[in-house]
Amino acid sequence: MAYTIQQIAAALGAEAFGAVDLEIDGVAEPAEATARHLALAMKPEYSDALGQGDALAAVIWEGADWQALGLRAAIVAPRPRYVMSGLTALLDPGQGWGTGIHPSAVIDPEAELAEGVSVGPLAVIGKGAKIGKDSIIGPQSYVGNDAEIGSGAYLREGVRIGARVVIGARFIAQPGVVVGGDGFSFVTPETSTVESARATLGDQGEADAQSWTRIHSLGSVTIGDDVEIGANSTIDRGTIRDTRIGNGSKIDNLVMIGHNVIVGNDCLLCGHVGIAGSTRIGNNVVLAGKTGVSDNIFIGDNVITGGGTIVLANIPAGRVMLGYPAMKMETTMEVFKGFRRLRRLFDDVSELKKTVSKPPHNT
Amino acid sequence: MAYTIQQIAAALGAEAFGAVDLEIDGVAEPAEATARHLALAMKPEYSDALGQGDALAAVIWEGADWQALGLRAAIVAPRPRYVMSGLTALLDPGQGWGTGIHPSAVIDPEAELAEGVSVGPLAVIGKGAKIGKDSIIGPQSYVGNDAEIGSGAYLREGVRIGARVVIGARFIAQPGVVVGGDGFSFVTPETSTVESARATLGDQGEADAQSWTRIHSLGSVTIGDDVEIGANSTIDRGTIRDTRIGNGSKIDNLVMIGHNVIVGNDCLLCGHVGIAGSTRIGNNVVLAGKTGVSDNIFIGDNVITGGGTIVLANIPAGRVMLGYPAMKMETTMEVFKGFRRLRRLFDDVSELKKTVSKPPHNT
Amino acid sequence: MAYTIQQIAAALGAEAFGAVDLEIDGVAEPAEATARHLALAMKPEYSDALGQGDALAAVIWEGADWQALGLRAAIVAPRPRYVMSGLTALLDPGQGWGTGIHPSAVIDPEAELAEGVSVGPLAVIGKGAKIGKDSIIGPQSYVGNDAEIGSGAYLREGVRIGARVVIGARFIAQPGVVVGGDGFSFVTPETSTVESARATLGDQGEADAQSWTRIHSLGSVTIGDDVEIGANSTIDRGTIRDTRIGNGSKIDNLVMIGHNVIVGNDCLLCGHVGIAGSTRIGNNVVLAGKTGVSDNIFIGDNVITGGGTIVLANIPAGRVMLGYPAMKMETTMEVFKGFRRLRRLFDDVSELKKTVSKPPHNT
Repeated sequence: MAYTIQQIAAALGAEAFGAVDLEIDGVAEPAEATARHLALAMKPEYSDALGQGDALAAVIWEGADWQALGLRAAIVAPRPRYVMSGLTALLDPGQGWGTGIHPSAVIDPEAELAEGVSVGPLAVIGKGAKIGKDSIIGPQSYVGNDAEIGSGAYLREGVRIGARVVIGARFIAQPGVVVGGDGFSFVTPETSTVESARATLGDQGEADAQSWTRIHSLGSVTIGDDVEIGANSTIDRGTIRDTRIGNGSKIDNLVMIGHNVIVGNDCLLCGHVGIAGSTRIGNNVVLAGKTGVSDNIFIGDNVITGGGTIVLANIPAGRVMLGYPAMKMETTMEVFKGFRRLRRLFDDVSELKKTVSKPPHNT
Repeated sequence: MAYTIQQIAAALGAEAFGAVDLEIDGVAEPAEATARHLALAMKPEYSDALGQGDALAAVIWEGADWQALGLRAAIVAPRPRYVMSGLTALLDPGQGWGTGIHPSAVIDPEAELAEGVSVGPLAVIGKGAKIGKDSIIGPQSYVGNDAEIGSGAYLREGVRIGARVVIGARFIAQPGVVVGGDGFSFVTPETSTVESARATLGDQGEADAQSWTRIHSLGSVTIGDDVEIGANSTIDRGTIRDTRIGNGSKIDNLVMIGHNVIVGNDCLLCGHVGIAGSTRIGNNVVLAGKTGVSDNIFIGDNVITGGGTIVLANIPAGRVMLGYPAMKMETTMEVFKGFRRLRRLFDDVSELKKTVSKPPHNT
Repeated sequence: MAYTIQQIAAALGAEAFGAVDLEIDGVAEPAEATARHLALAMKPEYSDALGQGDALAAVIWEGADWQALGLRAAIVAPRPRYVMSGLTALLDPGQGWGTGIHPSAVIDPEAELAEGVSVGPLAVIGKGAKIGKDSIIGPQSYVGNDAEIGSGAYLREGVRIGARVVIGARFIAQPGVVVGGDGFSFVTPETSTVESARATLGDQGEADAQSWTRIHSLGSVTIGDDVEIGANSTIDRGTIRDTRIGNGSKIDNLVMIGHNVIVGNDCLLCGHVGIAGSTRIGNNVVLAGKTGVSDNIFIGDNVITGGGTIVLANIPAGRVMLGYPAMKMETTMEVFKGFRRLRRLFDDVSELKKTVSKPPHNT
């Protein structure tokens, strides 16, 4: 589908210059752009690359001279990353699925599908499930009994939504997402080795083996509006009450959210993040890739962690954390520097011990 | 479904007091309980919350005075977490699937389904597969050729069991579980950079690039009785013999068990645990979230690891471990304390060096 | 299926000795071998185990005396691990699926399937998808619109390939693989707390909450020839250009490859590896289990990481790295040694401070 530079600028609320009737079919990096592409050259370092490609039009940085860059038309982006949002939304071709209910889908007669709902081939929708207006249930996806999904949802292929899960509007789930698996909660008849190790931090010696008995999950999962979940991520049901994800939170691939966890609004949880049972995460929290969070703790609003952080204790609001164990980022950066000088430190101390233990010179 | 307090106490083998004919429909946290809920108030700190909710009956801690708590009936739980097990099993509504074989399932005529087996919509069961009595094969699940699943299994939606996998009784698999993917085992024609790095710990410089050739997995996976596996976890086939999971072991979400691994009985492997090829794990081992274990090593019985532990060497039985690298928990706790004082240590040593190198005072 | 020792040796290009017409049905570890097994005894330490089993024939190490080992026939393997490759390929019974297009598969009339393609039950193939010669699309798998898969592909059950993904020849995907989920890319209208924390490394205090707006993925994923991907791993689409995986690279289970990432040729990425957006990985790189790599960095050719390594900065070619943060393996090994002596170091320094601050002896 073709757009004029003028149309694109208008959709973005940005300013257009030059031959604004020029048509483009898509976007490209500057060096790879053809004459039908809008090049994305939103930083001065892309000037040269523009010359290598064939773009006639580009999105350029504020203050750039589009004519000097050899362009025939340009859109100026005051906050480039934000412009990317509007631009890519406009040009996204999507998965290209048709609309309507595919005849191979298995939909319980007691499921309720609102107007405009599409269901892909070989999807399953259970008894009592409710799907909101204009939602798209992808091929081979599953929506369990009495689950509720709001309007405008977009489930990619092979998504699994368990029984009684409740999800708000505009939900996006990438392929393989699982919402509503049972929580991982087991108990032994007598005090277990884990419980006693937690109490004592000591070794277990010859502890008597015991078998684990299952605590079933009676709660479900409640997810707010505007939530997105990445491929093959899993969110478990709560034990008594629901596990909860707030409005506007975005979850990346292969993330694990344990039972009873509460994630606030507008959080970003990156790839391989794991949050153990009953932990509470505030609003606007950003956990970088591979961050792990212990069970039954609390992370305040606006907390940010760096990649690989292992959180073993509560974090107050506003902290930026890094490391194993999680410490303030500046502390961990000091520790990391210390690692590189650690051998030398041992040598220095060893030297000092020799010097100090020497008998004083006769004077 | 409604139960009387008396029925519940009997099912739990616990003692009931007061109006034991009172009926409840479900359980709830004390502050959120209605008059038809059994409140779970198994610790003294829940006293106040009981007053905020409307529960007439509760499970209370040993020694609690149920009448003083304003209740009309009570069940006393000597070991509260264990009572949770019986209580949640009793009240679990499950996924609400019907019984029988759904007509959309694709079942090979040479598969053997014992009495009482249910198969959900769009499931696939291969040639020669054997499914034990009363097992439930969830919607869109797959059971491969010649795979055997014992009685009373419960496979949630989209579970994949590969060819020739053998599983004991009462198996539970959460959505998206994969048992029987091929092992990750590759070899180069000549000694690879990895092999030489393992031998020397040194850098590789300009090593010649080589391509990887696949070692196929001829073994399968053998799983004992009473095993549960969490959502989207994966267990690979063995190379020559089977990968093995012992009786009673419980595996959380997004866990990775490599080829040839042996996991003993009654282990708990929490979210994001990864165990590399050919490693052996004893009985009653508990690996906390994000624990990683190297290939070809051994972890003894009753070992416990803390969250994020990276195990690079064998661990003797009974140890409680934490950290990267895994060390005894008390050692790692000391190291973590040391991190916070590391900068100061460098400063102290620097100060000492200055002091000591000063010429002695003239005396 | 039975093979003679002669046939196997010929297939492996190895030398056979003794009763080379002896037939075997499969391979086994020495102690578990029956008379119809070829025992795998490729190191001297297996001599005793050979005696415990009933094997008449074995693959033995170079220089071994097969007659003294009590065998009737033997194959000598100059590089045992490499011989495993040929041997297991020869004997792999596979999943046992039939050929042809299963009638329950949903294949768009505008999809193009080359000669010899098999499609399993309940698979879905979208409009404009192209599947190369002799490829096998497993049960319940999905191939999106306009996706292209080369010849000789082998997709296990429940694999998801998104729209417009392009994959070379001989692709192998284990169950639950997702290629072509949308990238995890979000932006706030104003500078976000993450951006400012990256700039300052400082805490966020009472930062204003903002909601995240989605940057859509317009790129797709391009995968070279001879690539294998493990169970439930995920590879995201690029934002503008494609995410790319080079020829011959092998990816284990539960691995996460972010948007715009470029992985070179002949890499090995082990279980739970995560690579964040826009990072470039060279050729012949080996990342051990649970290695995490930050976004927007570069890892040179022939780099190797140890288990659990967290890479926060570029790594030059040829380095062997370990630790959090990633450092040269020898440096990290020193640091790990230092951890065990850290408490003592603190004690020593504390002692030194006391000694040094003492008034000098009267002399």
